[in-house]
Amino acid sequence: MELQNAKGTKDFPPEEKILKNQIVDTFKKNFEKYGFAPLETPILERYETLSAKYGGGSEILKETFKLKDQGDRTLGLRFDLTVPLARFIGMNPTLKLPFKRYELGRVFRDGPIKLGRMREFWQCDIDVIGTKSMVAETEILGVVSDFFKELKLNTIIKINNRKLLNGILEQAGITKSKEDTILIIDKLAKIGEKGVKKELEDLGLTNEQIKNVLNLIKQKDLNKIKLTNQEGLEGLEELEELFGYLKPLKINFEFDPSLARGLAYYTGTVFEVFLKKGKITSSLAGGGRWDKMIGNYLGSNKEYPAVGISFGLEPITQSLKQEEQAKTPTQVFLIPIQTQKETMKIAQEFRKAGINTDLDITGRGISKNLNYANALNIPFVIFIGQEELKKNKLKLKDMKSGKEEFLTKEQIIKKLK
Amino acid sequence: MELQNAKGTKDFPPEEKILKNQIVDTFKKNFEKYGFAPLETPILERYETLSAKYGGGSEILKETFKLKDQGDRTLGLRFDLTVPLARFIGMNPTLKLPFKRYELGRVFRDGPIKLGRMREFWQCDIDVIGTKSMVAETEILGVVSDFFKELKLNTIIKINNRKLLNGILEQAGITKSKEDTILIIDKLAKIGEKGVKKELEDLGLTNEQIKNVLNLIKQKDLNKIKLTNQEGLEGLEELEELFGYLKPLKINFEFDPSLARGLAYYTGTVFEVFLKKGKITSSLAGGGRWDKMIGNYLGSNKEYPAVGISFGLEPITQSLKQEEQAKTPTQVFLIPIQTQKETMKIAQEFRKAGINTDLDITGRGISKNLNYANALNIPFVIFIGQEELKKNKLKLKDMKSGKEEFLTKEQIIKKLK
Repeated sequence: MELQNAKGTKDFPPEEKILKNQIVDTFKKNFEKYGFAPLETPILERYETLSAKYGGGSEILKETFKLKDQGDRTLGLRFDLTVPLARFIGMNPTLKLPFKRYELGRVFRDGPIKLGRMREFWQCDIDVIGTKSMVAETEILGVVSDFFKELKLNTIIKINNRKLLNGILEQAGITKSKEDTILIIDKLAKIGEKGVKKELEDLGLTNEQIKNVLNLIKQKDLNKIKLTNQEGLEGLEELEELFGYLKPLKINFEFDPSLARGLAYYTGTVFEVFLKKGKITSSLAGGGRWDKMIGNYLGSNKEYPAVGISFGLEPITQSLKQEEQAKTPTQVFLIPIQTQKETMKIAQEFRKAGINTDLDITGRGISKNLNYANALNIPFVIFIGQEELKKNKLKLKDMKSGKEEFLTKEQIIKKLK
Repeated sequence: MELQNAKGTKDFPPEEKILKNQIVDTFKKNFEKYGFAPLETPILERYETLSAKYGGGSEILKETFKLKDQGDRTLGLRFDLTVPLARFIGMNPTLKLPFKRYELGRVFRDGPIKLGRMREFWQCDIDVIGTKSMVAETEILGVVSDFFKELKLNTIIKINNRKLLNGILEQAGITKSKEDTILIIDKLAKIGEKGVKKELEDLGLTNEQIKNVLNLIKQKDLNKIKLTNQEGLEGLEELEELFGYLKPLKINFEFDPSLARGLAYYTGTVFEVFLKKGKITSSLAGGGRWDKMIGNYLGSNKEYPAVGISFGLEPITQSLKQEEQAKTPTQVFLIPIQTQKETMKIAQEFRKAGINTDLDITGRGISKNLNYANALNIPFVIFIGQEELKKNKLKLKDMKSGKEEFLTKEQIIKKLK
């Protein structure tokens, strides 16, 4: 048998998983700081749940892993965390609203493998269900701002509103091929003004229409966008309210009327987060307001206004990757020299003090143990011989500088904490 | 469409997921304290990997979810974390040994749903790969001891050795139906001496054999077990060494020569953890030494001695369930009274101070907000009106006692931290 991973999946060895865990912990901390509560939904869903109208849509269903259980029921592996959330809300009618939840977990898409796209990957979502207030958007963007600040990633939040974008199209006199026009406009940052112009021409828009729409979507000052149609004015008003909340909280953002975030179910605000500098140009997070989907999905008369964001664990990890990655959370490695039992006791004392401690359990020699600690990037080792035990001083070696010191256990604990 | 979960799966709403997260965090902390590093393997594996010889075995393959990807490759959902670990080790020949890894993640078994058995559930494993030393067992049991102590669960670790058990059978003159005999002996704690006797009679053992074997497996004092065969003596020696390590570290355990842990691939030490008192009589964790499986699985000449333990997240959660479960991690809920913007600012100050803070984002009245905070078991609410802002004192209400106090922001932060 040839050993290999299933196509589109990979292992995360300790040096990658440690970093991933750090990011996940930072997510959780910031989500909870803002009053989001954790939810766990299963990976296995009834295929009916995933394929229902207003769920993922036909494109995503083509990429959905389908399987049967022993009772011949058709199941699927979830392709996102949104459809399970809609199902959960439908099944829990007494849930208190607004419901602020976060979920971190794996999703599966049986799509083409290119540009590092995986078939099994993580999604990290927060959503506020149950209010139309722009304060909900502000809460989401507050999390975004704090999260990236904590990771020391210099990011910018781009914000727009789908109602405004629809209004811009109306204002520019575009009544046909609206969806295609939006998809082209959405590419402004990528392909530039010329590229957008060319594609809009190919789509069959008149020069007048193109001039009008380009003038509006290039405008970075909200106050300079003049619209007369109702949907556009509503979008303007919502953005004004939102920006009025964000500014006193010192949340940095940029208004970008070309931002659309594809054709997904967004109904109002949309936002996307990018690195200001660096190699990674894809977005690190994106989301917006999706007031219709849950109600539609549940076939309910009740409205479930919602706003949320999905963080991309993969591009965030890539942005943070360092040259020297920790290969273990271990802080210190103890090398016994004919002192196995005493060393085990000392390991317990260090652990009790909250220090991640490992020790040789093989009985091998000093140089092999040093190689091991070195290969794992463990920052400190301690040699423990009879002499050291008698003197009550242990030899601590800093693996990076090579410096050695004789210290008491208490001094070592103080130093490593 | 009727909304329901796939059979054998369930949602974990915040009140359950918060507790689960606490347990998982306690796992991670203690695993890392002992030098175990995190590994993540995929849920999707090639079916060939799962069904290979020395993998899960035919019984477990019957319960394995099978599916195809778009390239018509046959895949399976992993049924444990051990086969993926064996594959990972085979694919990473330069891995430094001993490899101490932990993995927490979901596994899938399409088995009968009874007694709360799920088809999608979590496993939490630690293993030390690459040494035969009993110090590795000691490390594992050190984690066990610290973990349950931190959760304040009063547990006992039962320990035995498969070599000793084989030796006991040999000593008792049992040469046929050895596996069945072991399975019956393993039930001593559950069905008692009479039950075991009856089943051994039914199996066709002689009275002499039964008497001999019962005498030995009831013996709780290692020193009183007298054996003459080599395998049994080896088992005795290993246990003596292990107990010699555990005692000075004050790790509580009980020797139980009837413990076998089924017919799994254990080759030496076996252990299982139980609650001392309480309703939950199933084991909370179990494991042992499995020196042969990885080498056999990889078809390798190299030996990969291993010892590990698997913790049961479900019974541990059940043991910890309290009557009043937190439904959100939120510590304080702010109720603005015509002060939305100012309240948003105060929320940010509390969050900056590390307090999980939520606020009304709907603009609803005070009593509805109090109902909401109450339903979510949020311990404190703060009312923020113009008057309070002017005086620089906010009204903090303790939701449990009903007590209200006027305090400055700084005093509130101090109190809530």
